[in-house]
Amino acid sequence: MQKQLIQEKLAQATQILDEFDTDLWLTFVRESALQADPVLGLIAGVDVTWHSAFLVSRSGQHTAVVGHFDAPNVQELDAYSRVIDYHEGIGDALRQAIAQYNPQTLAINYSESDVAADGLTHGMYLTLLRQLQGTPYAERLVSAEHIIAALRGRKSETEVTLVRQAIRTTEQLFDEVEQFVKPGMTQRQIAAFVHGRIAELGLDYAWPKAFNPIVTCGPESAVGHAVPGDAVLQKGHTLHLDLGVKQDEYCSDIQRMWYVLDDGETEAPLVVQRAFDVVYGAIKAGESLLTPGTPGWQVDEAARDFIVDNGYPEYMHAFGHLLGRSAHDGATVLGPQWERYAGICELPVEVGNIFTLELHVIVPERGIMSLEEDVLVTETGVEYLSVPQTKLRYIRP
Amino acid sequence: MQKQLIQEKLAQATQILDEFDTDLWLTFVRESALQADPVLGLIAGVDVTWHSAFLVSRSGQHTAVVGHFDAPNVQELDAYSRVIDYHEGIGDALRQAIAQYNPQTLAINYSESDVAADGLTHGMYLTLLRQLQGTPYAERLVSAEHIIAALRGRKSETEVTLVRQAIRTTEQLFDEVEQFVKPGMTQRQIAAFVHGRIAELGLDYAWPKAFNPIVTCGPESAVGHAVPGDAVLQKGHTLHLDLGVKQDEYCSDIQRMWYVLDDGETEAPLVVQRAFDVVYGAIKAGESLLTPGTPGWQVDEAARDFIVDNGYPEYMHAFGHLLGRSAHDGATVLGPQWERYAGICELPVEVGNIFTLELHVIVPERGIMSLEEDVLVTETGVEYLSVPQTKLRYIRP
Repeated sequence: MQKQLIQEKLAQATQILDEFDTDLWLTFVRESALQADPVLGLIAGVDVTWHSAFLVSRSGQHTAVVGHFDAPNVQELDAYSRVIDYHEGIGDALRQAIAQYNPQTLAINYSESDVAADGLTHGMYLTLLRQLQGTPYAERLVSAEHIIAALRGRKSETEVTLVRQAIRTTEQLFDEVEQFVKPGMTQRQIAAFVHGRIAELGLDYAWPKAFNPIVTCGPESAVGHAVPGDAVLQKGHTLHLDLGVKQDEYCSDIQRMWYVLDDGETEAPLVVQRAFDVVYGAIKAGESLLTPGTPGWQVDEAARDFIVDNGYPEYMHAFGHLLGRSAHDGATVLGPQWERYAGICELPVEVGNIFTLELHVIVPERGIMSLEEDVLVTETGVEYLSVPQTKLRYIRP
Repeated sequence: MQKQLIQEKLAQATQILDEFDTDLWLTFVRESALQADPVLGLIAGVDVTWHSAFLVSRSGQHTAVVGHFDAPNVQELDAYSRVIDYHEGIGDALRQAIAQYNPQTLAINYSESDVAADGLTHGMYLTLLRQLQGTPYAERLVSAEHIIAALRGRKSETEVTLVRQAIRTTEQLFDEVEQFVKPGMTQRQIAAFVHGRIAELGLDYAWPKAFNPIVTCGPESAVGHAVPGDAVLQKGHTLHLDLGVKQDEYCSDIQRMWYVLDDGETEAPLVVQRAFDVVYGAIKAGESLLTPGTPGWQVDEAARDFIVDNGYPEYMHAFGHLLGRSAHDGATVLGPQWERYAGICELPVEVGNIFTLELHVIVPERGIMSLEEDVLVTETGVEYLSVPQTKLRYIRP
């Protein structure tokens, strides 16, 4: 699966380089277990120790220059036509490998706006400049941010299959949570149950375990990326989970909502039900704008306006983000035109993008109301990969 | 434990800043789940999403500027006197926070020689320059590499305790492996056994699972960071494991050697025994030079010379590296003065450093002979944290 994935993505990369009229794309890394370039998993899927260069070319003939220790693992990928190993230092081998392509442009991994395209550290950038000094290539460096955004954003068939799998697993976990929880349990207990199941299933986390899942019980618990604490689930309050697993290196990211029925209740009070309807409606409003070519901020705006028009304060984050190898999977972002999202909300939605759609409102004295769905952008619109939550779920004491 | 650790390391950092006459040290990160600065675990131990600044001061009063979502987790550390949260963009808050210190030097995380001190990406560096434009601080940026090397290298009491714990666990796993293995098993089967035990114990890996443990069975298996394959363990061959676990965020990294007795044998053939003795002797030779103040390359040289003087080819890697939160835990390296190790082998050994000591030779037709010990540098010399392997261990069919 891993080998097929790398070959699929490198074939895509070749096309994307051509599309952006870029001759050669260099990913330059070292000690990737300690400081990985987020791109590495897409184009090599191996860890390397010494200075290593992955040269992806619009010709379709790619070259890797790695320490001799790491060469066998790269060779096994059957993805790089040449795997050059070195013993004492990468300098000569790197310069020769680049010169063989004589690229007019050499794209490297830095970006102010897209963290997933910003894998080159500043120290490695200085090393690269030093290594290329005196060659024509030092003057031909450009940012690979558009290449990486396209490569990461346009999911291949295998990638969609893997995200689907992670989503199915997550939905099963939500069903198990629903059976497990009872009023009186703390956030911590509910999170511990999920952690136990994730360990039993041998899964990884889409974001750090400390706040995955986020568990919000009633009005006391903090909103946001808070570590689950000692707030107790009570009747008449909402229960909210934000959970993402990583399975075979691909992630899910889903939020689900329950209401804990109070004594004598058979359904949620109007104020809770209305909050659900507005959050659900806002997701549908955003979804209706989620078509290829639309800039991210317009999708966000549709959802944001819906919330505000219905009398709730706007949410202080983006409506959606890409999902894939990581939970926040780089540009494009479906977010407002704030400084914090500079550049990445102008980018257009593309076919093959997998987005989360998420937002929340607060229900006074009851808790948070927050949903998150995972969807695939197709030629004609949107395909839900998660089974969307269309109704409030209930915990019956 | 985590909270105590952060407070211990920040107290150390305050002293180190003073030692290096540096006013303020900035760690500038975003989306740390996707692209973490290796320093973050030492000074904050939380993940952050938006642009975030951790300002550590020689005054001992530290400031964090983070997105509003992440503020509660940083506040809980009780380590930053001020936690400033922001909503739309970090710019103003960051500039104000720095200006309050009016630092004459502002250290940032980049380094050509030390990957663990090179957590600032090039895109984030450009963002920082842009944010500081027009302030005096743009001209006062210096590399934090010496600060980070000292902070990471000088293990605190809690850190030593945690590494000891990971080592004990690893040694128990080696004992279990010895009971489990039989001639006829493949590298893959042996690795799978270890993976199963690591999952049962809820441990993490000190380096990626794909080649952890490295399992070398006889002469066929590749040397180095190779993924365990289908080579079969046979009588008359050596068995070698290189295993590192991560337990409570701290790592072990140990290599152990077995010989599989052939029919009628009661001990290893002379050629195998001699290889063990030379590898063991080289580790002792290096150890004898491992004292505070000695540059790393001199320690390597002692071991390297011992190997060569005994008629074996030199090993094509460093003799030792720091061990801690990661298996390759930054500068100093006990390695030769090759281009690839530029700068980091000149650094002196310090009290509180935890090093691995490792090297191998090849025994023709028998397999690899490779040992690795984990040791703590003290005022007076070396304390072994692993129970050193002083004799070849045997697999009896």
